[in-house]
Amino acid sequence: PQSPHEMFFSAEPLDRLSIKRPDQDWIRTRQKDPRTVYLLFHKLSPMTQGGEESGPVGTQSNYIVFTTDDITTFYSPIICNTEVTFVQMCSDLDQEELLKRSKDKTCSFPKNPHRDLLRLSEEEAGLVAQSRSVLAWHARYSFCSTCGGRSRVEEAGHKRSCENTTCVSHQGVHNTCYPRVDPVVIMLVLHPDQNHCLLGRKKVFPPGMFSCLAGFIEPGECVEAAVRREVQEESGVLVDPVWYVCSQPWPMPSSLMIGCLTIAVTTEITVDQDEIEEAKWFSRQQVIDSLIGGSRAAFVVPPRQTIAHQLLRHWTGLTSNL
Amino acid sequence: PQSPHEMFFSAEPLDRLSIKRPDQDWIRTRQKDPRTVYLLFHKLSPMTQGGEESGPVGTQSNYIVFTTDDITTFYSPIICNTEVTFVQMCSDLDQEELLKRSKDKTCSFPKNPHRDLLRLSEEEAGLVAQSRSVLAWHARYSFCSTCGGRSRVEEAGHKRSCENTTCVSHQGVHNTCYPRVDPVVIMLVLHPDQNHCLLGRKKVFPPGMFSCLAGFIEPGECVEAAVRREVQEESGVLVDPVWYVCSQPWPMPSSLMIGCLTIAVTTEITVDQDEIEEAKWFSRQQVIDSLIGGSRAAFVVPPRQTIAHQLLRHWTGLTSNL
Ligand SMILES: Nc1ncnc2c1ncn2[C@@H]1O[C@H](COP(=O)(O)O)[C@@H](O)[C@H]1O
Ligand SMILES: Nc1ncnc2c1ncn2[C@@H]1O[C@H](COP(=O)(O)O)[C@@H](O)[C@H]1O
Ligand SMILES: [Mg+2]
Ligand SMILES: [Mg+2]
Ligand SMILES: [Mg+2]
Ligand SMILES: [Mg+2]
Ligand SMILES: [Mg+2]
Ligand SMILES: [Mg+2]
Ligand SMILES: [Zn+2]
Ligand SMILES: [Zn+2]
Repeated sequence: PQSPHEMFFSAEPLDRLSIKRPDQDWIRTRQKDPRTVYLLFHKLSPMTQGGEESGPVGTQSNYIVFTTDDITTFYSPIICNTEVTFVQMCSDLDQEELLKRSKDKTCSFPKNPHRDLLRLSEEEAGLVAQSRSVLAWHARYSFCSTCGGRSRVEEAGHKRSCENTTCVSHQGVHNTCYPRVDPVVIMLVLHPDQNHCLLGRKKVFPPGMFSCLAGFIEPGECVEAAVRREVQEESGVLVDPVWYVCSQPWPMPSSLMIGCLTIAVTTEITVDQDEIEEAKWFSRQQVIDSLIGGSRAAFVVPPRQTIAHQLLRHWTGLTSNL
Repeated sequence: PQSPHEMFFSAEPLDRLSIKRPDQDWIRTRQKDPRTVYLLFHKLSPMTQGGEESGPVGTQSNYIVFTTDDITTFYSPIICNTEVTFVQMCSDLDQEELLKRSKDKTCSFPKNPHRDLLRLSEEEAGLVAQSRSVLAWHARYSFCSTCGGRSRVEEAGHKRSCENTTCVSHQGVHNTCYPRVDPVVIMLVLHPDQNHCLLGRKKVFPPGMFSCLAGFIEPGECVEAAVRREVQEESGVLVDPVWYVCSQPWPMPSSLMIGCLTIAVTTEITVDQDEIEEAKWFSRQQVIDSLIGGSRAAFVVPPRQTIAHQLLRHWTGLTSNL
């Protein structure tokens, strides 16, 4: 079957126009443009308007539209651009205070971003993924990691520069100045019989839920080696070969999920108790029943917005519209 | 054709034994074990022994073997483990001073790591990729980016913790504490006629060399979107769809190269002058002639150790042993 290619959080409704990022004049003009839309985040939660109902991004967005007069108290404006400019801002002010300042009284903040961000429309999710990851970087990286000095925002929020002019971070190009993206492998491990797959559950999962194994890619590792290592660490199972299926940005805070399929060469399971509570082989029929849901479900599948869910669908051949 | 799966820098000669990283006693025992091999880096260049000749990693390695008495003046011991433990150390001491202390008088440091690291054996390259990336992280991230305080090495060099106990980096798990890996897309763009491909050259390339376009994956982007955006930014060409081919760790300092093939839907080239000096369509025959080398070569291909070279071979169907 074809790879699932429309993953949640991966919509790109706006041109990133990275070429404009260094252009201060252009940015200032856009910031004052009345068509500019301001998206406000409080501690990485986007303020939404219009209650439960969700509309497309833009004038009809369920995001709060601030005017330029409001922006002075906020930090880290980040800009994405099309005809309309979107500015994402993050504030540590009290939520109540922010809601009070908002002209639209239907505004609110999601209580649990990990859950509530999954309710956005595809387009909103794409925009929020980009904004949230960059804002999370500013929140955790406001000091220069090379000298400990303060750093300042540049290039429309896509760069930070150390304010200490003698810092070695100014010699050459260093990743310390750019937003961080953490590559993660997430894999559906197939049994040698190719009729079962290996799923695990962490203690923090909702009751009954099982999902694909996953882990951060380490320095000096290719995707395929990371898949082999993480599966072995977490379940004791040896796998090979590995096939790439699809990828997904995951803005919690800024991962790149690299989804793979792999085949086990051993079947005995020894879980890494620190990370995984239980890991089990499930039959293809159990996975199909669980994706369909209802009384025959063998386990709770991860939500459809996750790449784990899409890998399961991909394997069973069930289309996303089911 | 099958994906090129044995990429330079991706060999994994040692078990990473990440489960042992928090075990201080085990680490101390291993550090004192006479079988332990110490690999010394000076500013991210590995010290080698035995002159030009290269041997396998271990007792016959061309890496310098230090004894435990020597290690007190060095920082950032990093450990990878099998039966023999390898400790990687980085020193800012003078190169001459380090060579003087070495018992083996055939030792030296590579003059130009970007070039000389490509001369390592496959196994050595895998080990150096891992070590160099982690050491580069320690060199640039010795302060906490969240509060600017000093951080200290933990978990056998695979973690740094802020020494300021009130720092918010201690609440929850944050990427600030873990080595950084930067995902990069690198892609061979095929012409709609599928008989040509698009290659570009940067000003810093050796004369006549052309290679695949490449760029850092940005926050909130999936692999496929990053390929489309970077190709458009650098060449003005629109592409779709995108296929993953293979990946490679690139320890300069710590990238994960994600190699793709994609098909152009437009053919007019407008290069981003800041990054690319020239971009051109080359015919399949020109690529084959250039891979084979000699007088019929149309351009200089990137070295065989690069994923760009392997993508070109993959497309032309030429095997790596040619
Ligand atoms: N970039 C990172 N961000 C967060 N945790 C990381 C990172 N790299 C390694 N870790 C560690 O990896 C654990 C999760 O394991 P895994 O996802 O299986 O690799 C976390 O609890 C951290 O201890
Ligand atoms: N993690 C990073 N490390 C180094 N440079 C980066 C990084 N992220 C973005 N950049 C910028 O990207 C430029 C290279 O362009 P590209 O590789 O095409 O994305 C560099 O000169 C930097 O300005
Ligand atoms: Mg994991
Ligand atoms: Mg891990
Ligand atoms: Mg793990
Ligand atoms: Mg580039
Ligand atoms: Mg770029
Ligand atoms: Mg670029
Ligand atoms: Zn600095
Ligand atoms: Zn701190």
